[in-house]
Amino acid sequence: MASSTLFSMCSSKRESFDIKAINSNKEFKFNTTSNLLNRLPVKAMLSSEFTNSRLLTDENSLKWGQSERFLRNRMQCHAVPAYPTGKKFQLDDVIEAQQFDRETLNAIFEVAKEMETIEKNSPGSQILKGYLMATLFYEPSTRTRLSFESAMKRLGGEVLTTENAREFSSAAKGETLEDTIRTVEGYSDIIVMRHFESGAAKRAAATAGVPIINAGDGPGQHPTQALLDVYTIEREIGKLDGIRVGLVGDLANGRTVRSLAYLLTKYLDVKIYFVSPNIVKMKDDIKDYLTSRGVEWEESADLMEVASKCDVVYQTRIQRERFGERIDLYEEARGKYIVDKGVLKVMQKHAVVMHPLPRLDEITVKVDADPRAAYFRQAKNGLYIRMALLKLLLVGW
Amino acid sequence: MASSTLFSMCSSKRESFDIKAINSNKEFKFNTTSNLLNRLPVKAMLSSEFTNSRLLTDENSLKWGQSERFLRNRMQCHAVPAYPTGKKFQLDDVIEAQQFDRETLNAIFEVAKEMETIEKNSPGSQILKGYLMATLFYEPSTRTRLSFESAMKRLGGEVLTTENAREFSSAAKGETLEDTIRTVEGYSDIIVMRHFESGAAKRAAATAGVPIINAGDGPGQHPTQALLDVYTIEREIGKLDGIRVGLVGDLANGRTVRSLAYLLTKYLDVKIYFVSPNIVKMKDDIKDYLTSRGVEWEESADLMEVASKCDVVYQTRIQRERFGERIDLYEEARGKYIVDKGVLKVMQKHAVVMHPLPRLDEITVKVDADPRAAYFRQAKNGLYIRMALLKLLLVGW
Amino acid sequence: MASSTLFSMCSSKRESFDIKAINSNKEFKFNTTSNLLNRLPVKAMLSSEFTNSRLLTDENSLKWGQSERFLRNRMQCHAVPAYPTGKKFQLDDVIEAQQFDRETLNAIFEVAKEMETIEKNSPGSQILKGYLMATLFYEPSTRTRLSFESAMKRLGGEVLTTENAREFSSAAKGETLEDTIRTVEGYSDIIVMRHFESGAAKRAAATAGVPIINAGDGPGQHPTQALLDVYTIEREIGKLDGIRVGLVGDLANGRTVRSLAYLLTKYLDVKIYFVSPNIVKMKDDIKDYLTSRGVEWEESADLMEVASKCDVVYQTRIQRERFGERIDLYEEARGKYIVDKGVLKVMQKHAVVMHPLPRLDEITVKVDADPRAAYFRQAKNGLYIRMALLKLLLVGW
Repeated sequence: MASSTLFSMCSSKRESFDIKAINSNKEFKFNTTSNLLNRLPVKAMLSSEFTNSRLLTDENSLKWGQSERFLRNRMQCHAVPAYPTGKKFQLDDVIEAQQFDRETLNAIFEVAKEMETIEKNSPGSQILKGYLMATLFYEPSTRTRLSFESAMKRLGGEVLTTENAREFSSAAKGETLEDTIRTVEGYSDIIVMRHFESGAAKRAAATAGVPIINAGDGPGQHPTQALLDVYTIEREIGKLDGIRVGLVGDLANGRTVRSLAYLLTKYLDVKIYFVSPNIVKMKDDIKDYLTSRGVEWEESADLMEVASKCDVVYQTRIQRERFGERIDLYEEARGKYIVDKGVLKVMQKHAVVMHPLPRLDEITVKVDADPRAAYFRQAKNGLYIRMALLKLLLVGW
Repeated sequence: MASSTLFSMCSSKRESFDIKAINSNKEFKFNTTSNLLNRLPVKAMLSSEFTNSRLLTDENSLKWGQSERFLRNRMQCHAVPAYPTGKKFQLDDVIEAQQFDRETLNAIFEVAKEMETIEKNSPGSQILKGYLMATLFYEPSTRTRLSFESAMKRLGGEVLTTENAREFSSAAKGETLEDTIRTVEGYSDIIVMRHFESGAAKRAAATAGVPIINAGDGPGQHPTQALLDVYTIEREIGKLDGIRVGLVGDLANGRTVRSLAYLLTKYLDVKIYFVSPNIVKMKDDIKDYLTSRGVEWEESADLMEVASKCDVVYQTRIQRERFGERIDLYEEARGKYIVDKGVLKVMQKHAVVMHPLPRLDEITVKVDADPRAAYFRQAKNGLYIRMALLKLLLVGW
Repeated sequence: MASSTLFSMCSSKRESFDIKAINSNKEFKFNTTSNLLNRLPVKAMLSSEFTNSRLLTDENSLKWGQSERFLRNRMQCHAVPAYPTGKKFQLDDVIEAQQFDRETLNAIFEVAKEMETIEKNSPGSQILKGYLMATLFYEPSTRTRLSFESAMKRLGGEVLTTENAREFSSAAKGETLEDTIRTVEGYSDIIVMRHFESGAAKRAAATAGVPIINAGDGPGQHPTQALLDVYTIEREIGKLDGIRVGLVGDLANGRTVRSLAYLLTKYLDVKIYFVSPNIVKMKDDIKDYLTSRGVEWEESADLMEVASKCDVVYQTRIQRERFGERIDLYEEARGKYIVDKGVLKVMQKHAVVMHPLPRLDEITVKVDADPRAAYFRQAKNGLYIRMALLKLLLVGW
């Protein structure tokens, strides 16, 4: 085994990477900008003469070839700031709606728009060639999984699929999420993860050396849904500042409407209307947050009046599973606010109806044929947003 | 948002597509032949300056970028007939055996024969590069799924897989098949669908803007199986006119033998022998249809005699699940007609044994080594037929 | 149908392939070296003028285009030895640890080391382009499956996945493993198989014309795990001769430690220490085998002492499912030998801790940060070993 001396090195998701080392009397230098950090250099090292050789540092005698996380946690960093000029933004993981500021949202949307123009077999359709995405789903969500896998493949990337990830942590085996992540990151360049526990994605990102995308973690976050909702408003209405949005249906439990309300605070002069059965009203935390950010909001029991004033009527499904035994309450709630031809009649010509899908009958099928029915276009926008995120996380801006 | 004027347009699966529009004072013309219709032009529009711009028509102010179905249903068509000369045939979806005439069958078989010659990494192996097939399976059928996925990948295409499609319409969510299709068509270029309900594929095709292939819908249709059966007879015997076919086993419930009998009416001077236990005899509807089309048929209880006269002995499995509690009847039926070495002995040298697979013991394992055992070649032909259909549906003749 | 005369031919997995035939008065000659034997030539024939034509032999009138197995079993072989000079070794299937000698292991490891250096979009990353691997899993093993699929895709190959293979042999259908293999080999170039029955992989290999890799068959074999274990020792310690290995934990049931002990007999001057609760001690068959091969071994109850002497401490999980109702015995056994910081303290600087994963708490999480914790690198080595095997089986040395 050859011996190497490490002179300087930095490894973190957020800074650039600078390495000088001597291996068998040959001097090596590495430098890389940060968004490639966790992948390329370590891979380069793994596959270079450094593999399994030793790094002599103050602290210890270390081996190359160990997990990136180890390097990140153990090494003292002497980082050179990356992207000193012309830097747009930095994206390491996609975990929660709260991580995005207005500038970042705009940048993602700009890339998503490029994604809409990528044609079969054009150069753009191969920008992720050679990259491997693992979809690590602890519970099935076929819709979300297909959207991510389509996004990856539309860009020339490849996919490892599992909807069976609970098997990793089955009773008999009992592996921790952290161990699973460290195994799967050895097989892939990025992990799209769906979990049944709130906070799981954050834990995964803390462990992983490859980027993590949260595709929903229990009652917690589903940030790509939030992004595609805002993107759809911008594509359909042409603006986000000054927008009037009516949120309708189950506002207590629906994480999409909560995240959307949150993200709309990034824009100016927004007004939000809440229209919901009493039993599933928007909770105070979001209302207070809107107020604290100077966003106007109003509760209303009159869908027709709200629909006539809004740019966007965002309908959601009343989730039966929230009502337990009280089917009577569920039936009462779900029938209360239906988007139908009557609602369309009072809506403005430029306005649109959105819905995160799947729907039951809270939007009648007759609405589908109206050009203002935007929900299937919204689903398609999910593809473009996910293409954009995969590009940004894997090859950067 | 720019404003466009639509002068003429047509969108249907069966006719060509002619568009003239003015957008921001620039005039655009589109024309496309029909088998690309539902995909390319709308995609082109989606990614062109027209995206989300308005189309002014007599009827309404419409948006580009909505689903193709909307365009198809809403727009007045001034279609120019496609393929005026040199047209072989037109294939939009593969839904049921009844849709194929003799000319179409011949054309599909011609393409399937080409498929047999495609070598690894030859240009032919990349003709579907950039295309994405979704296998939307509402019940598992690993054999059929692998065959389709192999076909797509042998031609350079990519696959999105789900054997979990029932999840879309799970009790809690209750999405309609139509909504599911409109979501999945946003992620893929073609949908191969397996469903537990008869008629589901037809409903999907009525909704979808992308081609649908029926990979079996409940007790209904399984048209690619029917095609590969006829193709195998032609490949093994060298002809279809004048063929003598013995259909053996469960003729009451087997959809393969029913479809095969149906398709054989397209050929001249065919004779069909039915050999089955009384309890699972061929039903009158098929017998009457054969008679009405001038196809000779005969019921027989003597497998040996039939085998000695036929070009093809088509054996099928007696399905236990059809007998409910009456295991005695099942045991009696399944033991009655076995293809074994004795049957081979009376068969002609050029004749073959076929079976749709899986088999239990209705063909003994000893038969496998005989060159006239064609059932594994038959399974392989399923690959070529599916390659041919994918090519025809996605890039045309 | 054209008629062909076969003059000489050979088809077996182990010898070269020599064909001379006359078809429509044109003479054809085929020759191929053996490791491509079961795939390319037959495929070439299937797609050539020979397809479905007749071969006249002494024995019978045969058809081209039947399964390779048929050809293999029926034809008289006049094999020309392949690789007369410069031959490294021959690999047809990967079924059990016993099939590997020291020379073969070295050759596989040499290729695995090359695999470590393959970069994204380098020519090496496309060496399996056009090849299709089927993962035929009769029970889920997501970890193993993802590792194989990653390996295939890292080399440019494609994958057909099923974790649902039991469906083939479901009660209602009852297909034999042999029939399933003959169907799936029609769709793919190599089959990676996981089964619940010992010996299933061997049966599959006897039937298949394409290479079979055993990814675990019940309590039987899991040879790629054994290979990656030995490879990891060589990569971590730099040698295999003279190695000191402590096997810890469930030595009675763990197939990994049994296979590892077996493979270590290929090397010189090896010493093995067994450290396990009494109830799960290493069985006599392995001890006797070690003795017969002149490998020193010793049982010990003192993990600390063993750890201080070994190059490798190989920890394994005590499997609860082996204890049935006796949870008390399980709890006693699992707590007995834990690798923690204390164990690390007595281990030598160059030594490493290995584990086949998943782990529960038999290695404490605090150990992970130590550079001698090799288990995640070990998991990654599984990728390189599988890449090497896929390359060797599909395109040869």
